[in-house]
Amino acid sequence: LNRIKASGLKLRFCTNETQATREKFVKKLQGLGFDISVAEVTAPAPAACRILKERNLRPHLLVHDDLVPEFAEIDKTNPNCVVIGDAAENFTYANLNEAFRVLIGMEKPVLLSLGSGRYYKETDGLKLDVGAYMKALEYACDVQAEVVGKPSKMFFESALAEMDVPAQQAIMIGDDIVSDVGGAQRCGMRALQVRTGKYRPSDENHPHVKPDAYVNNLAEAVDIILQQL
Amino acid sequence: LNRIKASGLKLRFCTNETQATREKFVKKLQGLGFDISVAEVTAPAPAACRILKERNLRPHLLVHDDLVPEFAEIDKTNPNCVVIGDAAENFTYANLNEAFRVLIGMEKPVLLSLGSGRYYKETDGLKLDVGAYMKALEYACDVQAEVVGKPSKMFFESALAEMDVPAQQAIMIGDDIVSDVGGAQRCGMRALQVRTGKYRPSDENHPHVKPDAYVNNLAEAVDIILQQL
Repeated sequence: LNRIKASGLKLRFCTNETQATREKFVKKLQGLGFDISVAEVTAPAPAACRILKERNLRPHLLVHDDLVPEFAEIDKTNPNCVVIGDAAENFTYANLNEAFRVLIGMEKPVLLSLGSGRYYKETDGLKLDVGAYMKALEYACDVQAEVVGKPSKMFFESALAEMDVPAQQAIMIGDDIVSDVGGAQRCGMRALQVRTGKYRPSDENHPHVKPDAYVNNLAEAVDIILQQL
Repeated sequence: LNRIKASGLKLRFCTNETQATREKFVKKLQGLGFDISVAEVTAPAPAACRILKERNLRPHLLVHDDLVPEFAEIDKTNPNCVVIGDAAENFTYANLNEAFRVLIGMEKPVLLSLGSGRYYKETDGLKLDVGAYMKALEYACDVQAEVVGKPSKMFFESALAEMDVPAQQAIMIGDDIVSDVGGAQRCGMRALQVRTGKYRPSDENHPHVKPDAYVNNLAEAVDIILQQL
């Protein structure tokens, strides 16, 4: 990271994290020794806030308690859309029914989903991710959610806009073959897959997505990028 | 009902009720004055039990507490499938994650769903029905649920088998254009839509389903049927 920053290249951190504010997310990474600030992070909640403002949408929030501060400046009275994130323990029967009633009460239901992940692993086991609950509401209301977050094109485009860099001059480094690599490529960027984290050897036979290159770790990705300057 | 029974015609009650045992369901209808017994009821839970036995499936149950007795005779140790019903208050975050973990742990996940309804109305408002939670698990596990209950063909076929009557000689009377009328017709039966209960005037312009006739109430349906004997 320090080598990239020293080279003068522009940099954004693109995360689908929706269980915490960017502040909390950044503190965690800083604690791990990363040189990172809130202003360098592209995350679904602030991207959703931009959309809400642009379209005069007032959300009913079905999100994690720790994410609520990201929506502090948004008018939430008399909701005319639902924003769903990985609400975890907030995915109760009562809360799901409430979000559903807000949606079904609209002439044309608007559902923004902060990601479309199927599931993820925590120390106490696998958990259903926001995508599963998004599908439940989509089915019940016969509506298609607008997904904010990787791999949506809109999400990568906002990261590019924040850096003021065209897609052709940007490169994505990520461990998720679909969300990171596939999403970035569909947006016109090149993408490296890192063989760490979510990476699985079977990714190398993925039916639809092929990274521009594989690297074994972040340092190797930086080597390749700096060599080509 | 009494006129049909007196005519000697065979009769089954087909319900998608999964919040209670047939015993409880029948008691409620008897209380309303209907001549009905448990043996005359075709319901998703006993239909699912037949499937479980036939295919040596041991279910993990995600159902309403009041439905559990229907599965009393079924081996539920070391589950190799998930049965989901309208679990209502049992649709907790923890229970959904647990059902998901059972499914995702299988080489080929088997999900039986006691219906595919989107939502229903209760005195305290609209509630998400089993179909929404079915979709959540389908998406998370990349699996297609097998739906037991109306409008599934298998469900109507088991009702016909119980009466020992061919589809061509049977007629369905129901208020739900898709579940009752559409399901029965796809099975080769004729179907009347009653203009009560779930019926909506817009049903008469349904893009796919057209009943063989409309009736204003059950008595009128009986008139038509007895006239044609």
